[in-house]
Amino acid sequence: MSPPDAARLSLNTATVSAQWSLAQAIEGCARHGIRGIAPWRDKLAEMGVRQAASAIKANGLAVTGLCRGGFFTAKDWKDDNRRAIEEAHALGARCLVLVVGGLEEGSKDLAAARRRVAEGIAAILPEARKAGVPLAIEPLHPMQAADRACINTLEQALDLCDALGEGVGVAVDVYHVWWDPKLEQQIRRAGKERILAYHICDWLVPTRDLLNDRGMMGEGVIDLPQIRGWLEAAGYDGCHEVEIFSAANWWRRDADEVLRVVRDRHRRSS
Amino acid sequence: MSPPDAARLSLNTATVSAQWSLAQAIEGCARHGIRGIAPWRDKLAEMGVRQAASAIKANGLAVTGLCRGGFFTAKDWKDDNRRAIEEAHALGARCLVLVVGGLEEGSKDLAAARRRVAEGIAAILPEARKAGVPLAIEPLHPMQAADRACINTLEQALDLCDALGEGVGVAVDVYHVWWDPKLEQQIRRAGKERILAYHICDWLVPTRDLLNDRGMMGEGVIDLPQIRGWLEAAGYDGCHEVEIFSAANWWRRDADEVLRVVRDRHRRSS
Repeated sequence: MSPPDAARLSLNTATVSAQWSLAQAIEGCARHGIRGIAPWRDKLAEMGVRQAASAIKANGLAVTGLCRGGFFTAKDWKDDNRRAIEEAHALGARCLVLVVGGLEEGSKDLAAARRRVAEGIAAILPEARKAGVPLAIEPLHPMQAADRACINTLEQALDLCDALGEGVGVAVDVYHVWWDPKLEQQIRRAGKERILAYHICDWLVPTRDLLNDRGMMGEGVIDLPQIRGWLEAAGYDGCHEVEIFSAANWWRRDADEVLRVVRDRHRRSS
Repeated sequence: MSPPDAARLSLNTATVSAQWSLAQAIEGCARHGIRGIAPWRDKLAEMGVRQAASAIKANGLAVTGLCRGGFFTAKDWKDDNRRAIEEAHALGARCLVLVVGGLEEGSKDLAAARRRVAEGIAAILPEARKAGVPLAIEPLHPMQAADRACINTLEQALDLCDALGEGVGVAVDVYHVWWDPKLEQQIRRAGKERILAYHICDWLVPTRDLLNDRGMMGEGVIDLPQIRGWLEAAGYDGCHEVEIFSAANWWRRDADEVLRVVRDRHRRSS
């Protein structure tokens, strides 16, 4: 694999969420020559959608995704997802990433949770289509099935896309899917049309926390160039969005240093 | 679901490995009316295979599995697996459980690791057949793909069984497979012939450690009666082997108390 095009690098703001506001992250991207950004909605709310949209535009950044909609088992899921669609539209986001939610409180019924997710996406889909905001179902790692997302493989996400029709695709995050023996096959199945986002980081050995112990590209065991190759073979020509939750390491460092390392590792290890 | 037959309860000795030797675990099973046991090989070596076999026989226990063979990426894998087959034969174990191993040291090539596992099992299979010891491939949770086992779904394990032929089946451990959207389908596919062991425990929310934070049946979110129902529908009539790695809780308790709780939760929550 030849190194990836630096112009495809995007920063998911979770990577520096402990250090920076969204305004700072936008300026940071501009300063470090990073051309894409994917904000989280808590930081977006702090900054204000209009101001964020204008700062992003002023700096010429692409919005590779808005994180996140979903959590269809939460009480106000419908209103919250409507707002998320509006915000994604206002930012001109490439997609709204859906972290679909896990089991309902007190329930062990995984099949019911999965039905509820399918119904929830179907319910918001007409508004998403009208707004021109593609919905990106993100399969999450099976270790997060109970509490964060009961969609856990790319195959399962694509089956859901098949059932839902136009306007829905997937976000492929290597952290969640790298282990899957059917990954290459299912990336091919997804194709250019349905791969709405590509998130990168690395899997550390050992991993010390189920949520916030992700590694920087090259620190772990994921063969990132290989997975990128599969995506490119499927026709994906979008960005490579770096999303690193790292309570013990990267969240503790100076954010400008983090962005320098992100740029370097994107080129050398992705 | 009606409660499970108490006669099907088996103790995987990992559940009390911090407290008891194998000799103590054998006596403990007898004392608590538990009719099956599945020893780990480190404790078996401490006790001596002959002595263990005779104590198990004297107490009338069924050996529902020997843990473990596998780790086909380790240096002495062939000799070690040969010894494991001999030990399983000496104990009259229902199967030798294979934890197949993860990536080779320094490698990111998951496909190569998986090929090596297939070759490794194929290499030891003739001896296992000769010894009358079925090999049980245990798919491990995807969070353990890098360092413990690169076989991570029941579907993948059964594909491997298909390729290898007679003498190989699977160990279904709820902890590793409960999240899988294809679980019911793949249990049906496996059928009575190929389900060589059934391991139970529970998935805690939150889970604080990727290896040693399993819950007692009923403490977590796994719908154990449902999964047992799928196994019974597939014709499985073997034991329910309780395997709980729990550094923060069950390993710290009095082992007789643990066994009392195991018996109770087997009846009430499995």
